[in-house]
Amino acid sequence: MIGRAAVVLAAGQGTRMRSRLPKVLHPLAGRPMLQHVLASLAEAGIEQQVVVVGHDAEQVEAAVGGGATTTVRQEPQKGTADAVRIGLELLDSGTQQVVVAMGDAPLVPAAVFEELLSAQAAGDACIALLASRPSDPSGYGRLVRDAGGSLQAIVEEDDADAAVLELGEVNAGTYCFDAGWLRANIGAVPVSPSGEHYLTDLVEIAISGGSRVVVVSSPRAELAMGINDRSGLAAAERILRGEIAERHMRNGVTIVDPSSTFIDIDVQIGEDARIEPWTVLSGATRIGSDAVIGPQAQILDSKIGARTTVWSSVVESSVVGEDVEIGPYSHLRPGCEIGPGCRIGNFTELKKTRIGAGSQIHHFSYLGDADVGEAVNIGAGTITANFDGTAKHRTTIGDRAFIGVDTMLRAPVSIGPGARTGAGAVVTRDVPAGETVVGMPARRIGTRQRKAPDRNPEQGGGKPRSDA
Amino acid sequence: MIGRAAVVLAAGQGTRMRSRLPKVLHPLAGRPMLQHVLASLAEAGIEQQVVVVGHDAEQVEAAVGGGATTTVRQEPQKGTADAVRIGLELLDSGTQQVVVAMGDAPLVPAAVFEELLSAQAAGDACIALLASRPSDPSGYGRLVRDAGGSLQAIVEEDDADAAVLELGEVNAGTYCFDAGWLRANIGAVPVSPSGEHYLTDLVEIAISGGSRVVVVSSPRAELAMGINDRSGLAAAERILRGEIAERHMRNGVTIVDPSSTFIDIDVQIGEDARIEPWTVLSGATRIGSDAVIGPQAQILDSKIGARTTVWSSVVESSVVGEDVEIGPYSHLRPGCEIGPGCRIGNFTELKKTRIGAGSQIHHFSYLGDADVGEAVNIGAGTITANFDGTAKHRTTIGDRAFIGVDTMLRAPVSIGPGARTGAGAVVTRDVPAGETVVGMPARRIGTRQRKAPDRNPEQGGGKPRSDA
Amino acid sequence: MIGRAAVVLAAGQGTRMRSRLPKVLHPLAGRPMLQHVLASLAEAGIEQQVVVVGHDAEQVEAAVGGGATTTVRQEPQKGTADAVRIGLELLDSGTQQVVVAMGDAPLVPAAVFEELLSAQAAGDACIALLASRPSDPSGYGRLVRDAGGSLQAIVEEDDADAAVLELGEVNAGTYCFDAGWLRANIGAVPVSPSGEHYLTDLVEIAISGGSRVVVVSSPRAELAMGINDRSGLAAAERILRGEIAERHMRNGVTIVDPSSTFIDIDVQIGEDARIEPWTVLSGATRIGSDAVIGPQAQILDSKIGARTTVWSSVVESSVVGEDVEIGPYSHLRPGCEIGPGCRIGNFTELKKTRIGAGSQIHHFSYLGDADVGEAVNIGAGTITANFDGTAKHRTTIGDRAFIGVDTMLRAPVSIGPGARTGAGAVVTRDVPAGETVVGMPARRIGTRQRKAPDRNPEQGGGKPRSDA
Repeated sequence: MIGRAAVVLAAGQGTRMRSRLPKVLHPLAGRPMLQHVLASLAEAGIEQQVVVVGHDAEQVEAAVGGGATTTVRQEPQKGTADAVRIGLELLDSGTQQVVVAMGDAPLVPAAVFEELLSAQAAGDACIALLASRPSDPSGYGRLVRDAGGSLQAIVEEDDADAAVLELGEVNAGTYCFDAGWLRANIGAVPVSPSGEHYLTDLVEIAISGGSRVVVVSSPRAELAMGINDRSGLAAAERILRGEIAERHMRNGVTIVDPSSTFIDIDVQIGEDARIEPWTVLSGATRIGSDAVIGPQAQILDSKIGARTTVWSSVVESSVVGEDVEIGPYSHLRPGCEIGPGCRIGNFTELKKTRIGAGSQIHHFSYLGDADVGEAVNIGAGTITANFDGTAKHRTTIGDRAFIGVDTMLRAPVSIGPGARTGAGAVVTRDVPAGETVVGMPARRIGTRQRKAPDRNPEQGGGKPRSDA
Repeated sequence: MIGRAAVVLAAGQGTRMRSRLPKVLHPLAGRPMLQHVLASLAEAGIEQQVVVVGHDAEQVEAAVGGGATTTVRQEPQKGTADAVRIGLELLDSGTQQVVVAMGDAPLVPAAVFEELLSAQAAGDACIALLASRPSDPSGYGRLVRDAGGSLQAIVEEDDADAAVLELGEVNAGTYCFDAGWLRANIGAVPVSPSGEHYLTDLVEIAISGGSRVVVVSSPRAELAMGINDRSGLAAAERILRGEIAERHMRNGVTIVDPSSTFIDIDVQIGEDARIEPWTVLSGATRIGSDAVIGPQAQILDSKIGARTTVWSSVVESSVVGEDVEIGPYSHLRPGCEIGPGCRIGNFTELKKTRIGAGSQIHHFSYLGDADVGEAVNIGAGTITANFDGTAKHRTTIGDRAFIGVDTMLRAPVSIGPGARTGAGAVVTRDVPAGETVVGMPARRIGTRQRKAPDRNPEQGGGKPRSDA
Repeated sequence: MIGRAAVVLAAGQGTRMRSRLPKVLHPLAGRPMLQHVLASLAEAGIEQQVVVVGHDAEQVEAAVGGGATTTVRQEPQKGTADAVRIGLELLDSGTQQVVVAMGDAPLVPAAVFEELLSAQAAGDACIALLASRPSDPSGYGRLVRDAGGSLQAIVEEDDADAAVLELGEVNAGTYCFDAGWLRANIGAVPVSPSGEHYLTDLVEIAISGGSRVVVVSSPRAELAMGINDRSGLAAAERILRGEIAERHMRNGVTIVDPSSTFIDIDVQIGEDARIEPWTVLSGATRIGSDAVIGPQAQILDSKIGARTTVWSSVVESSVVGEDVEIGPYSHLRPGCEIGPGCRIGNFTELKKTRIGAGSQIHHFSYLGDADVGEAVNIGAGTITANFDGTAKHRTTIGDRAFIGVDTMLRAPVSIGPGARTGAGAVVTRDVPAGETVVGMPARRIGTRQRKAPDRNPEQGGGKPRSDA
């Protein structure tokens, strides 16, 4: 332990969000904003993290979950200094530096937290404070510096005269404190007229007491500031998305239009993959090298193999092999495994289905709860009737089977290797390997020739056809 | 009546649009641009509106429709002052203030019209004139002010020397006149070398006559200016769309990417709804609270209930209840009513169809002209044959019916409550409540067991299955 | 021949792209970036073009193809001056001016090449050099000018002091040389410490030798600069796309959201067409006047007729007539010809299929390798079984035929004019004109009435129905 901890302020109500969801839980690039803060703190080497919660405490506590992060409630809510005081009580006694982070400022990079830690330590300061220059500073406390650049005061907007209001440098609300100094002084923060204790007052306490306060300037103002409303949320989403896209492009991924591509923060993409416009890659998705995804593809929590194309389709929680072609307009629902070289054509729905290498489902089919072998051809209009109103049943199709157009497969049912079904067949019983069945319900051709001459394959109906 | 009226100039040809559609009728966020102007004037409390039309007069007249707005033709077209003179003749005699608005400047906010009215009245001026500072002032008349800031002249670009051309403040072309002064002076506008009468000359007449002209500065230049070409149209669309998105975000709607979301001006959205990217909400659409719309959804003139999700689907002129899930890749054509808790799965088409609460249509089905009860399960591949080549017929499906996969329902036909159909059934006659039918054409199992033992449900084909 | 030639530098490795594809072959708006350079040079009247290739020479040579362009290999790669020396050897002896262009700077407009040619000739200069002012000049050689504005030196960043680093004007790397001077001096370029010969040194040779070097400033910095990484590629794509959209808007095309519309460089669009958001028009696509394309349409190498709408659908390598409606969610695969007035509804797949005027395929159908007449109605769920596992076969449907829902057409098969099929029919033999067939396999109603009374059309199943 190097004695570093963080208190994360997540008690605010966020009324300008106008939401029943606590502000710090609104998602950004696939994660609640609070988790971005915690991840950056962890990346900066701060392992002990105490989140101070207030409004909607249960929801926030549930979202933070276990791990190294502790939550503590602030009730009633009496300001940021009060929240820090509560959080402080949970920190290890060996803590030497305390970062105070805002739960609604999800874009502060780990490097900025590191710089605050370094600046506080190197400067032998009681406080290192993050400053920024937002395009619109109104509403924020202004930093007043002396001729030498040292911080003289933070003046809140209500107390500021015209000259101070002109100052563009503001207090971003993120700090690193010397733990001992913080413990000694947190109780001295006065009560404001509104009955709250503001963290900003610690700056005045430090300066008037002759302690050093150092200022760290945020490299990009928009990364330092908190999110107050949905407009700010959308802006943060855009910034974060731009950074994620830049990272993948540096890694050798072509992103045709980064501004119209939504890639969640944990997604991995191989070299020379090409991401076409209007594409979503979310959750724990992994895209193989040389894959072409989009336009208009949505890949959720799935693994896509190298050289595979997913065109204007949705893939959910599935594993797709190499050299597969999917789409346009197909939907892989959760639980699919697609072997290499398969062709999942347009208007195809798969669910909890495994498809062997080189099989083809070119058009208009629904396979659910199915195991399909290799080199199988599924004709257009094929449907697995996997639900009998009570339970789901599985369908098995052997290697090299040829399923005719408009075949209904009433599960549980098994089609043997090399077997064939005729157009419009309603298959209700297992079909042995190499056999051909036709009709409704489907019968073997031999059997049917005897019993039902009008189904003679010579006259049609019996010879299975499929489409491509 | 408070004596306020507007003359809207809509006679111009708009040749740079290169369109057969009159310029002022090109749509923006779901309305012709002229209607944006009329709506802002009405919002500013100006009820009498006269639109002066010229080119393609019939189309513009038809689009303005009835209501409080009158149209009058300017033939031949002899300039903006001539158009105002013609419009003036139709105003009530009690009119005290006359706003002159451009039909091709659809982004001028009501607040700017109000400010012009106030400025004219308060300043006891004969003219209040709207000024702006566009990023590229070329082509516009420059405002020349004296040291005290009073307007001295408007100098057209052709008459301007280098110093004047440097001035960035231009005449936006929108005015508020004292009605009496305007009536007295409109006839004095001289003929230009091109044979037209320009409204701008009234400013010179006023100044040289010692009357006051006050200037109102547009808060955002891009809102004041007219649209001249399709590039300007696209820019206006972007601005307007951004403002609409901001309004919804302030109301507590999450819009993940405002720049890729197209929301028409009259759409209403409930709190905590989430609008995903690449989504169109158009016409009179209303979205309930906590709904999730998109990505890639198109909702046209429809009402979507609270907590309902519409994913990558199209909904046209329909009413969808609460807690419904639609998509991906479904299409509700006009005239559908979907009860609460329904699941309209992927690849489903509905038309003029009512679905009761809790029914499921998971995949690949077309229901047209159908009445479906509650808790019905529609198997994949179900189709209503609602058209016999001559007329459309209705299909009725009772509560808790179970329609097997690939069932054809030849309308008019009725499936009773709790009835079932087998896979591939072609239903041509009504099915009583609780009965099961199978086959092509479909028969009751009891009947069929006697006549057609090869359809014995023990052997399959008879036991209805569906899919999920 | 006017004695103008170009040497295009395309030998660089482009390591920052992190790609197996040579940098100059990465596509932009539908063309490899190198071809944009060659097209602009040709547009500027430079017909002889020598491309100097190095890394991945075979791929680049293959992509440049034949035509007026020659390629030559630089092996080993010893710098830009060495590359120019190699290219120079292939130029006609009558060449008077040599443009040196970068293969990775695809946005340099023809007008800039023309200006370099003019400036070199008019100024009697040995070199005309392209300068630009990028927003971030770091990494580029800075132009140092004297008080009179004449170029004094190009100082590479490593050799620059602080004052020079402050200069924002940089060498863009594109030149026009006097051919004789270049031939005389190219051998004098010294070897750098890294063992390469840099073209920039020619500027010093010229200046120190008392020859004139003139500077042409790029009107927009972002057009002059080379692409170094995928981020630069995405930025170039955006710029190029914006210019293409502007061109179409000037021609009278409405593009609702240019930033979300991807139009390849060779696409043609008629007046008053409307391109909705999230639309791709690629390859040799031609869109007729008054067509409405999108939202979410992808038109690849296809011709779309006037007044036709393509809504949320994909059209590949097909020809669509006038007044056709397609979509949403349809897919025309290569080789389709759609007659005027057709309606290709939702969830329809067509492949190598010709459809006559006024025919309707409203929903859920797959037609492959089919010839469909005029005024045909194709019911929902119709499928051509065009593949028998070995070969593809054609389906023919005559004028005014009425194909019932869920009809399977087992190719090769022909449906005569005015013929009808029943719901669920599996058609395996030709149907004569005007006849009606039903059942699996489908039989003429007359025949079936005798043999199979349970299929009596009076009882249903026999009377064909379709849907609309």
